[in-house]
Amino acid sequence: MAHEETSAEERLIARYFRPLATHPGALGLGDDAAVLTPRPGCDLVLTTDGVIAGVHFFPDDPPNTIGRKVLRMNLSDLAAKGAKPVGFLMSVALPAGVEENWLAAFAAGIGEDSKRYDCPLLGGDTDRTAGPISVSIAAFGNVPQGKMVRRSTAKPGDCVVVTGTIGDAALGVALRKDAGLADRLRLNETMRAHLNRRYLLPEPRNALADAVLEYASAAMDVSDGLAGDLAKLCRASSVAAEVDVARVPLSDAARATLVANSSLL
Amino acid sequence: MAHEETSAEERLIARYFRPLATHPGALGLGDDAAVLTPRPGCDLVLTTDGVIAGVHFFPDDPPNTIGRKVLRMNLSDLAAKGAKPVGFLMSVALPAGVEENWLAAFAAGIGEDSKRYDCPLLGGDTDRTAGPISVSIAAFGNVPQGKMVRRSTAKPGDCVVVTGTIGDAALGVALRKDAGLADRLRLNETMRAHLNRRYLLPEPRNALADAVLEYASAAMDVSDGLAGDLAKLCRASSVAAEVDVARVPLSDAARATLVANSSLL
Repeated sequence: MAHEETSAEERLIARYFRPLATHPGALGLGDDAAVLTPRPGCDLVLTTDGVIAGVHFFPDDPPNTIGRKVLRMNLSDLAAKGAKPVGFLMSVALPAGVEENWLAAFAAGIGEDSKRYDCPLLGGDTDRTAGPISVSIAAFGNVPQGKMVRRSTAKPGDCVVVTGTIGDAALGVALRKDAGLADRLRLNETMRAHLNRRYLLPEPRNALADAVLEYASAAMDVSDGLAGDLAKLCRASSVAAEVDVARVPLSDAARATLVANSSLL
Repeated sequence: MAHEETSAEERLIARYFRPLATHPGALGLGDDAAVLTPRPGCDLVLTTDGVIAGVHFFPDDPPNTIGRKVLRMNLSDLAAKGAKPVGFLMSVALPAGVEENWLAAFAAGIGEDSKRYDCPLLGGDTDRTAGPISVSIAAFGNVPQGKMVRRSTAKPGDCVVVTGTIGDAALGVALRKDAGLADRLRLNETMRAHLNRRYLLPEPRNALADAVLEYASAAMDVSDGLAGDLAKLCRASSVAAEVDVARVPLSDAARATLVANSSLL
């Protein structure tokens, strides 16, 4: 049972996280809680997702990508619901060995995306842990009242639409785990870089939130693969779906992989 | 890099956590996100706090107290801000060795308090970890618009008021860490049970939220001890405070401890 080092925590928060707390309701991270005045005519969409070293990222991944990844995972859920980002709460658990320049890079990365997606930090919690680094985010967004796009409202006759190429992040992980794989698949440098980037930094579709709101009868973000996630959406909506495999959008890298070894996709 | 066991996660969520998701906006935990329609005339108060085994609780603490403790830590923040609970999001990271009956007891405990404090589960995230059990909660509450009670608004002339006895939880921890201490302090059974309960299950002051809202110029919950937390409130408010030590409310157990060994409080 460690005594919480409040003053060390306060110092770290002030230095690295307060600059991200640009929302007036964050009260400069100096209170027990944040406060939001709801936008009239809007519902608030709430989601939470986290990452743990060794499970969702490799401990030696660049630290400035880790916070960005978990923020983007949450932003992706908001986008899939047709919601505009409002802000986020973040819980960070750090082992004793984490150095301050790791934390500086982590905070700089998350600050960059916080600005890019207009999703300021509202509050947080920092603790020491005997385990791996873990970061959990709860993110909030606005949708017009009653309009949140659900998983469970797909109808027979709907088209299945995706907003990007499928399978790249999973291939990026496979390449990270097997140093010789990219050579065996004969992937060129551009392809390798593409797959690695897609694994390190998912691209949330927040620019498409309005289109989701206007045109989607149901939606969810694809995080566990198209087949599994489409099956979830179908189950929730009591429908079935047919996918013409030849029409699934693939990157050049994924297409090259399929040609070399079709069991990988 | 472990593959997430989605179907196992779904099964656990359905069995143990879905019964806690009584808010219609939780969508039975079956969507990517929850949705809240804000109460007219209210602001939303947002807070987050978590616990990690070995830091905030002992790994062999009764599992039905662990979720309750972390929910109560968050409820306590809401109460100190004058807010009424609306609901919470929860992230749980579990090592592979955790058995299903641990999880059942954990969920039953948190379900009990969720009902007691009228604070339903809105959504969550469950992951495997190579580290210790950790639970992070983000909780939400309503306050009348513009009325959230802050830390930074204390004024010269204000009275310092506490809502309970001071030091009990810290003494409860001290007793847990030193098996002979209670004997050396000559604490009777009632005192031991009182201190242990105060450590295991903090009592959030949600019944006093309306009084805080009406009478407090500034407020925060006491979680790191009266002296340290009052100093934080004073710093945030640019005021100083005088405390007459003889008037600090103490439990019988804390008073007996002071008599036996004044260095412990």
